[in-house]
Amino acid sequence: MKVTEIKSYLASRRELIQKALESCLPPPESYPPAVHQAMHYSLFAGGKRLRPLLVLAAGEAVGSPPEPLLPAACAVELIHTYSLIHDDLPAMDNDDFRRGRPTCHKVFGEAVALLAGDALLTHAFAVLSQVPEGVPTEKVLQAIGELACAAGSQGMIGGQVVDMEAEGRQVTLETVNYIHTHKTGSLIRACLRMGGILGGADEEQLDTLTRYGENLGLAFQITDDILDIEGDFANMGKKGGVDMARGKATYPACLGLAQAKEIAGQLCKEAQELARSLGTKAEPLIYLAGYVLNRQG
Amino acid sequence: MKVTEIKSYLASRRELIQKALESCLPPPESYPPAVHQAMHYSLFAGGKRLRPLLVLAAGEAVGSPPEPLLPAACAVELIHTYSLIHDDLPAMDNDDFRRGRPTCHKVFGEAVALLAGDALLTHAFAVLSQVPEGVPTEKVLQAIGELACAAGSQGMIGGQVVDMEAEGRQVTLETVNYIHTHKTGSLIRACLRMGGILGGADEEQLDTLTRYGENLGLAFQITDDILDIEGDFANMGKKGGVDMARGKATYPACLGLAQAKEIAGQLCKEAQELARSLGTKAEPLIYLAGYVLNRQG
Repeated sequence: MKVTEIKSYLASRRELIQKALESCLPPPESYPPAVHQAMHYSLFAGGKRLRPLLVLAAGEAVGSPPEPLLPAACAVELIHTYSLIHDDLPAMDNDDFRRGRPTCHKVFGEAVALLAGDALLTHAFAVLSQVPEGVPTEKVLQAIGELACAAGSQGMIGGQVVDMEAEGRQVTLETVNYIHTHKTGSLIRACLRMGGILGGADEEQLDTLTRYGENLGLAFQITDDILDIEGDFANMGKKGGVDMARGKATYPACLGLAQAKEIAGQLCKEAQELARSLGTKAEPLIYLAGYVLNRQG
Repeated sequence: MKVTEIKSYLASRRELIQKALESCLPPPESYPPAVHQAMHYSLFAGGKRLRPLLVLAAGEAVGSPPEPLLPAACAVELIHTYSLIHDDLPAMDNDDFRRGRPTCHKVFGEAVALLAGDALLTHAFAVLSQVPEGVPTEKVLQAIGELACAAGSQGMIGGQVVDMEAEGRQVTLETVNYIHTHKTGSLIRACLRMGGILGGADEEQLDTLTRYGENLGLAFQITDDILDIEGDFANMGKKGGVDMARGKATYPACLGLAQAKEIAGQLCKEAQELARSLGTKAEPLIYLAGYVLNRQG
C-alpha cells in the first residue's frame, strides 16, 4: 500500500468510527439533557480516534471486515473519553483545557462531569454487549473481559493511582514504566487484542498483535511526555511543560530527552516489525506506529 | 416456607454472596494498594446485600441453583457500591458518613475515592463476563446489556442527574417518580431481570419478575424517604432529616407522610402478589418485599 492509499484507508475508517460513535450515544437532547450534552461535548471534542482505529486495523490485519469491529472501537473511545473527563476534575489534575476547549466540568459543572464520565464508562459495556453479525458470542464476552480488565484497578486506573502518588516525588524508571504501561498502555493493548479476538485472530496472530500493542502503548506515552516539553498549545490543545511543573513521573525526567526519544523510536520500530510479520493487511498498523512516533499533538 | 426457613435461606444466601464478593475483588494489598483498600473499605462496609439477594431469589424462583447467579449478584453490588462512593463526593452530596462510618473520600481522599468508584464500576463487567457453568453465553451477554442500561444515563445515572437538579426546587410528583424509578428503581429492576434471564425464566416469568422489580424499586425509595424523616442514626448509619434540609425531591414532601406510607404499602402488596403467582420457589421474594416495607434502616 502507498502512503496515499493508507491515508485514504484511515480517512474512510475515521468516518465509519465517527458515524458509529454518533449513533451509539443517546442524542444530546435525551432526558436528562445535562448529562447527555456533557457526554456529547467530550466525545466529540476533536479526538484523533487513535484507539478505535487500532481496533479496526488489528481486526482487519487478520482478515475481518471493519463493521463487526465497530462496537468495540466505540466502546474503547467511550472509556478513553470518560478517563479524560475524570482525570481533568479538580480532585484529580484540575485541568481547565483539553483539546483546546474548556474541560467538561468547566462547562457543565463538576457533578455533571463526574456523572457524564460514569455514564460513558457504563455505556461502553452496553455498546459492546451487542453481538455483531458473524461474531461468536464467546468472542464478544472475551472482548468485554479484556476491556474491563484493561480499564480497571490493575490496568488503566492502577496507572492513574500510581501516577498521582508519584507526583512531586523522585521515582524510579520502574515506577514510570508501571505508570506508562498501565495508565495508557493497558487500553492501547486492549484495542489490539479486542480487534484480534473479534476479527478471528489465531493464537500466534493474537500474540503478535498484543506485543505490537505493548510496544505502541509505551511509545505513545513516552512521546506524550516529550510533546509536553516540546509541543505547543496550537497542536496540543493544552499548555505544555505541565508535567515538569507538577513534578510528574516521565521518561525525559528519568532519562533525559535524547534517550527518551531513542527508546520511543526503538519501540515503534519493533512494533512495525511485528506488524510486518502479519502480512500486507497489517500495513495500516505499520503506518500508525510511525504516526504515534512523529505526531505533533 | 415458614418465616424461620426463609430467614435461614436468606442467611445462607448472604454467606454465599459474602464469599463471592470477597473472592471477586483483587486483595486489598494488591498493587496499587490505595485503590484496592478503598474498594474493599466501601464494598465491605456492612451493606445489607439486598440487590444480590434479589438476583438470587429471582433466579431461584424460576428454578435455578444459586451458583450461576453469583457473578451477576456481585456485579450489581459492585455497581451499587460505586454509586454510593461517587454520590458521597464533595461535588455531589458531600456526605461525611455512610453506614455509620466515614465515607470513602474522608478516609482515602477524593482522588482515590473517585478512582475506586470507577474501578468498582469497571470491575462489575469483568466479573459478569465470566460465564457460569450451564448458562448459555447469549444469556450472559443479555445480562450485561441489562445491567449497563440500568446503570447508565437513561437509568440510575439519569435519576441522579434529575435528583441533583431538583434539589431546593418545587418539583412535581412526576419528577419525583422519574427520580425514584431511575435512581434506585432501575438497578433493582435489573436485579430481578438478570436473575430471571440467567436463571432460565420464560417470557411470562421474566415479565412477572420485571413488574415485581418495578414495584419494589419504587417502594424501596419511598420507604427510604420515609426513613429519612422517621429513622435514627443508630439504625440508618447516617443523619436523618437530611433530605428535607436539602430540599430533596421526595414522596413525603410531595404527598405527605401518610399518603407516602400508603403508596409504599400498596406497591409492596402488589409485588408480593406477583411473586405469589410464580409459585412456592418465589417465597423469598414475598418475604423480601415485606422486609423492604418494614425495614428500620
